Amino acid sequence: MTSTDRVVVAVDAMGGDHAPAAVLEGVADALANDSDLEVIITGDANVVESFADSHTRCTAVVTTETILMDDHPASAVRTKKDSSIVVGARLVRDGVADAFFSAGSTGACMAAATLITGRIKGVSRPAIATVIPTSGPPVVLLDVGANADCKPENLLQFGKMGAAYAKIVLGVSEPRIALLNIGEESTKGSQLAIESHALMTESLTGFIGNVEGRDIPTGAADVIVTDGFTGNVALKLLEGVSKSLLGQVKDAMMATPFTKLAAATMRGPFAELKDRLDPDAYGGAPLLGINGVSIIGHGSSTGRAVSSAIRVSAQAVRGQLTQRIAETIAP
Amino acid sequence: MTSTDRVVVAVDAMGGDHAPAAVLEGVADALANDSDLEVIITGDANVVESFADSHTRCTAVVTTETILMDDHPASAVRTKKDSSIVVGARLVRDGVADAFFSAGSTGACMAAATLITGRIKGVSRPAIATVIPTSGPPVVLLDVGANADCKPENLLQFGKMGAAYAKIVLGVSEPRIALLNIGEESTKGSQLAIESHALMTESLTGFIGNVEGRDIPTGAADVIVTDGFTGNVALKLLEGVSKSLLGQVKDAMMATPFTKLAAATMRGPFAELKDRLDPDAYGGAPLLGINGVSIIGHGSSTGRAVSSAIRVSAQAVRGQLTQRIAETIAP
Repeated sequence: MTSTDRVVVAVDAMGGDHAPAAVLEGVADALANDSDLEVIITGDANVVESFADSHTRCTAVVTTETILMDDHPASAVRTKKDSSIVVGARLVRDGVADAFFSAGSTGACMAAATLITGRIKGVSRPAIATVIPTSGPPVVLLDVGANADCKPENLLQFGKMGAAYAKIVLGVSEPRIALLNIGEESTKGSQLAIESHALMTESLTGFIGNVEGRDIPTGAADVIVTDGFTGNVALKLLEGVSKSLLGQVKDAMMATPFTKLAAATMRGPFAELKDRLDPDAYGGAPLLGINGVSIIGHGSSTGRAVSSAIRVSAQAVRGQLTQRIAETIAP
Repeated sequence: MTSTDRVVVAVDAMGGDHAPAAVLEGVADALANDSDLEVIITGDANVVESFADSHTRCTAVVTTETILMDDHPASAVRTKKDSSIVVGARLVRDGVADAFFSAGSTGACMAAATLITGRIKGVSRPAIATVIPTSGPPVVLLDVGANADCKPENLLQFGKMGAAYAKIVLGVSEPRIALLNIGEESTKGSQLAIESHALMTESLTGFIGNVEGRDIPTGAADVIVTDGFTGNVALKLLEGVSKSLLGQVKDAMMATPFTKLAAATMRGPFAELKDRLDPDAYGGAPLLGINGVSIIGHGSSTGRAVSSAIRVSAQAVRGQLTQRIAETIAP
């Protein structure tokens, strides 16, 4: 496929804190910006039907159930067979859609992708990746939560899958892949990190060795590989500290009437900074290793985030992400 | 001991990127601010002798060797018996000093403390703790690097030791202790996290359950417990992202001649913010579980950081940190 090939993305209208409004806003924006994009929206009849009627290249698939954030992911996927998430995953499995996006329960999306859409042959554990804006080039960090306990073989596959994603979605021709560790030397770290370093040195093209926590925000590698426990802690810490720090900076800028006036002069540069640091630009977290593009949005996804995620989904489909991962994983 | 009791702190004059100047500056400042403090400085004759001669309550112990940052920690401690770190650890073991501070090689300080000063009876793994400034109350995070692989029993002890430190050094009367995890529910996380949660629920007074990465910068708990791999990644990420973000904020404020002028009005509030976020205020990372107070400084320690670390060391000695940990660990 090329960048102008027709792509069909299934979108869960019911997922996310601001659903369905933010989702529909994002779908409308994505459709307006890509004339070769088709969207199938899944969700309640009163939400999806009128929207599909009033938008070209948009089809509605009505579902009657919704998986809630506090439902047990795997049981919900098994029992709520007519939910917007399960139906979306099935559309990809059946080849009706090329990709599925949802900002609903991460656990349920993962369970639906794994149980319904299915894994790529040879992938032992699908991983959730995320693109992190840095002061340098953006970084693909994975796994950020699908697998709390990992083996070196899993981390090796994460490296290969992350590299395929960086090539296709970030346009990095030869991704530098690093292992997240607590020292630069190959003998540093947990048993998992030491064994993974040895395996990756032997078997991973583009492996540049260990990086530390402080290297994540500088773009020291294109792909940073870790287990889903460490990656999840790191991602949430990054989100938390950015929010907390920028909040405190804002308070300092608004401390007095004088500083408030002064802050007005900085609007331009700060808007640029905000744009550069906005994770919404990279559109959700891909679930890598699934037999079909599958992207999970943050619960707080805005219309902009949904639109980016749909754009990124289409890019991944056109770049043949699934086939590239299958090739890199095949023995 | 009370806050006016005489305390003897041994200080490694040779450790850190800015040694010996920053160390001596910190020692002088600490001595000037605490008339019941005595310092023994260990290091090269030409560094320590003249300084001790010109400062009251300061004694020099001349050493002839220096452990370098890239020496193998345990071997260096075994072979360089007349180094400033080994001699400092020995002064605590022999009861000549109550505490030891060094901004030298973290690994060597840990090895010296463990091999020479020795563990508190019943402590299976000493841990490195660090105090993190947050938008709320400061947080004691441990382990941040001593033990890359841990068992639930280790994490339970870390919780007890961290709570003793929070009580004595941060003045928290009933510390809230949390487990760093990737979800709030007790069933979430790695095998280690799940088992640790169960053990801590059963056996740890003050345990409030799981917190996530995003909760670290908000002060959601007084003590946050994790394994040394995750803790080290989190600490270095926190340092890295703070530096990177504040650098980008500074660039935005200095973008144009107008914003530069405007930035001048914000000096006061930003100086306050910088002070509040300055980890130097909490003075180094205590190695908890050692039979004597042992504090490790950042390699980049300034005079202010050294002075804080000595003040905190004296506070830990006067608060009987070692005895309190021994009591909390004893069966």
